[in-house]
Amino acid sequence: MNIQIFKEISRKYKVIFFDSYGVLRNYKGIYPGVREMLLSLEEDGIDYYILTNDASRSPKLLAKSFHDKGVPEITEDKIISSGMIAMDYMVNKISSGTLVYLGTERSAHYVESIGLKTISIKDVDLDDIEDVSTLVLLDDEGFDWNIDLSKTVNLLRKKSIPVIVANLDATYPVNNEDVNIAIGGLAELLEKMVKKTFMRFGKPDSQMFNFAYNYVINKNHVGKREILMVGDTLKTDIIGGNKFGIDTCLVLSGNVQAKNAELNIASSGIIPDFICNSVTT
Amino acid sequence: MNIQIFKEISRKYKVIFFDSYGVLRNYKGIYPGVREMLLSLEEDGIDYYILTNDASRSPKLLAKSFHDKGVPEITEDKIISSGMIAMDYMVNKISSGTLVYLGTERSAHYVESIGLKTISIKDVDLDDIEDVSTLVLLDDEGFDWNIDLSKTVNLLRKKSIPVIVANLDATYPVNNEDVNIAIGGLAELLEKMVKKTFMRFGKPDSQMFNFAYNYVINKNHVGKREILMVGDTLKTDIIGGNKFGIDTCLVLSGNVQAKNAELNIASSGIIPDFICNSVTT
Amino acid sequence: MNIQIFKEISRKYKVIFFDSYGVLRNYKGIYPGVREMLLSLEEDGIDYYILTNDASRSPKLLAKSFHDKGVPEITEDKIISSGMIAMDYMVNKISSGTLVYLGTERSAHYVESIGLKTISIKDVDLDDIEDVSTLVLLDDEGFDWNIDLSKTVNLLRKKSIPVIVANLDATYPVNNEDVNIAIGGLAELLEKMVKKTFMRFGKPDSQMFNFAYNYVINKNHVGKREILMVGDTLKTDIIGGNKFGIDTCLVLSGNVQAKNAELNIASSGIIPDFICNSVTT
Amino acid sequence: MNIQIFKEISRKYKVIFFDSYGVLRNYKGIYPGVREMLLSLEEDGIDYYILTNDASRSPKLLAKSFHDKGVPEITEDKIISSGMIAMDYMVNKISSGTLVYLGTERSAHYVESIGLKTISIKDVDLDDIEDVSTLVLLDDEGFDWNIDLSKTVNLLRKKSIPVIVANLDATYPVNNEDVNIAIGGLAELLEKMVKKTFMRFGKPDSQMFNFAYNYVINKNHVGKREILMVGDTLKTDIIGGNKFGIDTCLVLSGNVQAKNAELNIASSGIIPDFICNSVTT
Repeated sequence: MNIQIFKEISRKYKVIFFDSYGVLRNYKGIYPGVREMLLSLEEDGIDYYILTNDASRSPKLLAKSFHDKGVPEITEDKIISSGMIAMDYMVNKISSGTLVYLGTERSAHYVESIGLKTISIKDVDLDDIEDVSTLVLLDDEGFDWNIDLSKTVNLLRKKSIPVIVANLDATYPVNNEDVNIAIGGLAELLEKMVKKTFMRFGKPDSQMFNFAYNYVINKNHVGKREILMVGDTLKTDIIGGNKFGIDTCLVLSGNVQAKNAELNIASSGIIPDFICNSVTT
Repeated sequence: MNIQIFKEISRKYKVIFFDSYGVLRNYKGIYPGVREMLLSLEEDGIDYYILTNDASRSPKLLAKSFHDKGVPEITEDKIISSGMIAMDYMVNKISSGTLVYLGTERSAHYVESIGLKTISIKDVDLDDIEDVSTLVLLDDEGFDWNIDLSKTVNLLRKKSIPVIVANLDATYPVNNEDVNIAIGGLAELLEKMVKKTFMRFGKPDSQMFNFAYNYVINKNHVGKREILMVGDTLKTDIIGGNKFGIDTCLVLSGNVQAKNAELNIASSGIIPDFICNSVTT
Repeated sequence: MNIQIFKEISRKYKVIFFDSYGVLRNYKGIYPGVREMLLSLEEDGIDYYILTNDASRSPKLLAKSFHDKGVPEITEDKIISSGMIAMDYMVNKISSGTLVYLGTERSAHYVESIGLKTISIKDVDLDDIEDVSTLVLLDDEGFDWNIDLSKTVNLLRKKSIPVIVANLDATYPVNNEDVNIAIGGLAELLEKMVKKTFMRFGKPDSQMFNFAYNYVINKNHVGKREILMVGDTLKTDIIGGNKFGIDTCLVLSGNVQAKNAELNIASSGIIPDFICNSVTT
Repeated sequence: MNIQIFKEISRKYKVIFFDSYGVLRNYKGIYPGVREMLLSLEEDGIDYYILTNDASRSPKLLAKSFHDKGVPEITEDKIISSGMIAMDYMVNKISSGTLVYLGTERSAHYVESIGLKTISIKDVDLDDIEDVSTLVLLDDEGFDWNIDLSKTVNLLRKKSIPVIVANLDATYPVNNEDVNIAIGGLAELLEKMVKKTFMRFGKPDSQMFNFAYNYVINKNHVGKREILMVGDTLKTDIIGGNKFGIDTCLVLSGNVQAKNAELNIASSGIIPDFICNSVTT
């Protein structure tokens, strides 16, 4: 396994897509040296974007979380989230009715910003669902799993409506040992219970990469061979980037540990073009 | 599709295994005529047992629930539950340590009756799990899903212990329209999250049928061809009975509705030997 | 269920994407009236394209098969195939080495046209695979399943290489009763055997729709709301179109029969915007 | 990980169940020292049986293969095969009709010995299947996969019949590097194609352990705690034995290599009671 220097690899590209969690930050905050790395990219004329599977808040709030942690360079226009892809779908395909959501009020505000009427699953009356047109899974917080997961199953048994999952992650880390079950994990449970096909937005799906690519080529004249995807997760960042036709770089600062990297790559069959210890080494 | 008279079919057998829910009762109570049917079997010298996927309480309490609803004929010795099979496993294989459970205190009492030390997942301290030897999933009630499902995932990430699922049902009906997610459904979620193989006890697994068969042949001199399994669920009662080598009768008073029976049988490839509208027709 | 007239629906759009098999043709040939329908679209100034999950031959040969059957209007530039998406990937990501293929020589010619070196699985020497860089599954014909499927498993056990599946269909019809197992079905078998993640190109993946969309907007100034996807398969055409954000029309001339349409839609949760008996009614 | 001496462990038990492949033998022949180990068990008054997932030939022929390789101690009455369990099912549940099989003529002879009429899939006429009552998957050899796998799919689409799989293994080794796809692997492909539930016989299913247990207690007065299952595969031998309530010993002479044992156990959650390098160390 050939571990390379990120700075040297990055110089071969005009645009870099970074995953956020496990690449630039973790539960403790931004990794040391990340701001300097980004400033150095800017100096070299390399453009960059954050591709993140997060639908719990707006790009504006996602950018603010970087700003608040000392990286003001990551502005709203540098964020491409799975939530944006889901919103794009809703704008094109949902013209009427009420959208039931699983998640916090904050996550629903984001959806309401495009003019859709929303109601939390916890406030739904199952005897009065004529106006319900869509179900969207936004966040694992904001509702009572004991009650509202079964309620969601019954809603989907009573009415045939599209179901949108805007974050595919099954779990997320809460410290360096423990994880929480994410809304993507609950989506798998619900999908299995009702035996229906949900619509999933976010990496590794190419829709996210394509959204990012179209976004980028409006500003830069680049081809796919001039873009690098940097991520810590084989099953989202790396296979998604590979399949979209751009080069990929696995960093060992998140989901894949250095000692397991070779085995994980061989056993999954998902092969990054480059491997680096982190974006700052 | 040939619908037959249950009474006529039952006379061909010496022993009958009944599923409980959807066959003898539903959420509203015991079906009318069930007691008379059982008394008529007794008159004809046909022995019968209840084979139920239920680990939330002891056979004694399961029998009591029939007694309280006006069917005193179903005594404790007529009950064979998935909980009993799980208990049999625990007696043979767990000699020490603390057993962590998901479920109510009532369900844990049943486990404690065989001398094992138990603790609810909600009371576990994840920093002090040295004594934990086993995890058992008993009931969907008695703990906070928002907190304790992630806690269970983290317990299984920290320690490699056997996991016992004593009820395979994914959902159970709460009225004639709605269902609740059952502990079997939560088991699927947890198993997928931790990517480990859980041990499942209950129909359609042959261990349950074998337990029942050994139980029966201690009292009756019967062969497999003299036993009939009666159930409302193709994927548990019917395929389990078929595979064990006994005859099977699907009743249309529960999970499979008359109008869908033919399609369900053809599309699943699970073929009962007989079909009746109910055990009282 | 509201069955509508295809002609009336089509008039609301500027561009129409047609699936091929089950929509315009079946194993017997082109459906009667298809040519007239296409000419009528052209008269109305509506552009159209064929989106087909087929990687067994080039767009040129696919167009020729329409021409030979009396529909010269479907020219090569109207064809968008899953094979083209896979080729796009190969052009961007495979720069060297030999590509092993499962399929006919004809299907390999198509791959060779972009300058890659190919070898059929049946001619591979498993002791000399150093130069092998990629495996691509093209067609179910052209090799001996008894021998070469196990050989493929062993190739993937010996060397970690990307695997490309350019047709997701599990089966294809050979007459009005029988099907053949397709290369997509064999891909599922192989993927399960080696437990690796293959890269799949074709509907319902959004990459195919995006390829088509980019192709179209080079010629027409259209937005997603002005495009209609017409297909006979819920799990590829309809959910793919829905998720990409374009309107969808299910036709009942292929995989979904009229008598099952309502049930299939409700049980899958995949909901087309329109339903027509066929593109000629 | 505590590696123990097999001889010392074996002395704690009255009966030992051995898996065959990877435990007593491999593709090259019987492991050195196996015969001496078995003779030593006999000296110590420990009874033993071979529990093997093999339905390609009769117990008599399986015993002969040990005899021919210099271990005459393993006689026919010491063999318990998945084929025997499947035969037990057929004796109890199939009273009429023709049984279609996938496999060699030799494997069919075994089925014919219980009086059932058989026909190879390759000789079936799909227009004349009225008499067909059952499909049984016996062996991966004896038919043309290119033709007969699709033919099997079409048979199951035309007629709703029970399907029996008498060997669950997905692959089997042909030398120390390569594997062949086994009938259990083809069964998974077929089951996925037709979306029906097949009946599978063999470890880890408890029916096999129960059959063995009943067989043993007719000769020995033993309880479950006096029986040890010895195997090289976590997903069949070890979890099956654990679940049945008997002690289990993993040997590192087959599927699980010493260097991966700890990781495989932790990641699968399948925990043997003992680990030995082999049955002769």
